[in-house]
Amino acid sequence: MPRVLVTGASGYIARHALEGLVARGFAPVALARSIPDDLRHLADWHCVDLLDTQALRAVVAEAGATHCLHLAWDVGAGYWTSAANLDWLAASLTLLRAFAEAGGQRFVGAGTCAEYDWSALDGRPLGEDAPRRPHTLYGTAKNALRDCLHRFGAAHELSTAWGVVFHSVGPFERAGRLVPWIIAALDAGREAPCSAGTQVQDIMDVRDLGDAFAALIATPVTGAVNLGSGRGTSVADIARRTAEICGRPDLLRLGALPMRDGEPAVLVPDIRRLTHDIGFTPRHDLDDALRHAVAWWRARPESS
Amino acid sequence: MPRVLVTGASGYIARHALEGLVARGFAPVALARSIPDDLRHLADWHCVDLLDTQALRAVVAEAGATHCLHLAWDVGAGYWTSAANLDWLAASLTLLRAFAEAGGQRFVGAGTCAEYDWSALDGRPLGEDAPRRPHTLYGTAKNALRDCLHRFGAAHELSTAWGVVFHSVGPFERAGRLVPWIIAALDAGREAPCSAGTQVQDIMDVRDLGDAFAALIATPVTGAVNLGSGRGTSVADIARRTAEICGRPDLLRLGALPMRDGEPAVLVPDIRRLTHDIGFTPRHDLDDALRHAVAWWRARPESS
Repeated sequence: MPRVLVTGASGYIARHALEGLVARGFAPVALARSIPDDLRHLADWHCVDLLDTQALRAVVAEAGATHCLHLAWDVGAGYWTSAANLDWLAASLTLLRAFAEAGGQRFVGAGTCAEYDWSALDGRPLGEDAPRRPHTLYGTAKNALRDCLHRFGAAHELSTAWGVVFHSVGPFERAGRLVPWIIAALDAGREAPCSAGTQVQDIMDVRDLGDAFAALIATPVTGAVNLGSGRGTSVADIARRTAEICGRPDLLRLGALPMRDGEPAVLVPDIRRLTHDIGFTPRHDLDDALRHAVAWWRARPESS
Repeated sequence: MPRVLVTGASGYIARHALEGLVARGFAPVALARSIPDDLRHLADWHCVDLLDTQALRAVVAEAGATHCLHLAWDVGAGYWTSAANLDWLAASLTLLRAFAEAGGQRFVGAGTCAEYDWSALDGRPLGEDAPRRPHTLYGTAKNALRDCLHRFGAAHELSTAWGVVFHSVGPFERAGRLVPWIIAALDAGREAPCSAGTQVQDIMDVRDLGDAFAALIATPVTGAVNLGSGRGTSVADIARRTAEICGRPDLLRLGALPMRDGEPAVLVPDIRRLTHDIGFTPRHDLDDALRHAVAWWRARPESS
């Protein structure tokens, strides 16, 4: 069974990739700062801080993995401009180098729609070859890793791919983000003031997103692959549907806040590489994704 | 006196920057793996391996520098594709982060003409805003640092600039490169087989190149600044002039080797930012540069 190193393995996306990896015949070697009880059975876990260069090198050398799915990054509050982006880029380069040196054969990293040039969007789905011109430090650091990964792979006979993440929803999403925030407000009987939400996004169920990464690493496909559901939805529709599922559409206040500067009117990926080259079809539609998210947030001990 | 951290301080370019920094009122804090006796008086030296993350952080925290001139990188044989480029990019990001955290105010890094898109050249001097599309891991890693540096600086109130290095010649150049190689062959009475050398390059005297970095960091100019002499010369003319200075033009064999693939016909920078915004004028013409190089290589104990 091929061993796959999974970084950030307890995180929002990676935890939804582990089952898919096991289902595809991989033995995950999971790296995280702590081991989540609910995922313990899915992997060989190692507690490590990836920003500790020596510890990182040691665990990679020891893992004996042929594959690496690198999903760790700091995407906490303020991550668009946080200096931590430099640390995570540096750690990612150290990981890449150590993995190749330990005999690794295929490395898949996680990109972001923030790599693309948002000022050049024309409303059509974005292909992987769309112009890239990140406007944030986060997008810049991810874009830098994307370039270095592919160039390094080409020069050193390492198979490399880059799953470009757009928007998503589901269990373990950061609490301050749109859907969890609406759920928390409405379930507490508070109003939820939002922008007009006219911007159109592709919201993928994070269970599909994690599984798409597992599908991607199981193929020999190289280069960037956009990960998305293939459907564009306005943020207003997402908010409205969430409010309906919560049973409190009366508390939603669309248009109460200004639109955020710099957000594109339409930001949706072309997912033909994902569907054709990877052969992956998302299983959850938006309604399913939002119902699942609402149920999960309601069942959490912290929110009860 | 403002303290300026200089990395790679014993290296080919940096050693020629130290005097210029002192002349401009800086107190250099020099980082290198060993201290060259001839430069000892110019700086407060610290022996450190920048790839040792902990040591790097410690020395930066201790230095108390307001400025950083980051010239360290591995440009030994095979550096176009070497995995060491990943290490040096990671170390550079760690340095940048540590320097900002220690209260640093201005950071200047060293770029390369290999960042630009060589397939899009039209023979005209390249401006700093020319399309970038590196074709090597070296160019890709440098380009990644350029992007991260500027984006980080903008988000964290750090003044940043990027001196883009083209071609150069002078003392301490790597022995295998064109001019030192011709000198060594001719002085030993051997033939020097070269390509036809029709490609046109900008060869800057490394004394000027080092001084240009010192001039750049002493200004508040931000962004990329091309560093060059402003004159394009064919490689054949450089080889011929070197052979004449050596007194053995009869041993030069232009056209004996094929041209290297992928080298642009004309690769020269537009240096208006350097001359106008920085106010820097190169002091050494090509003849002066080549005579100095020949004299230096002949005076080296190793080549005598």
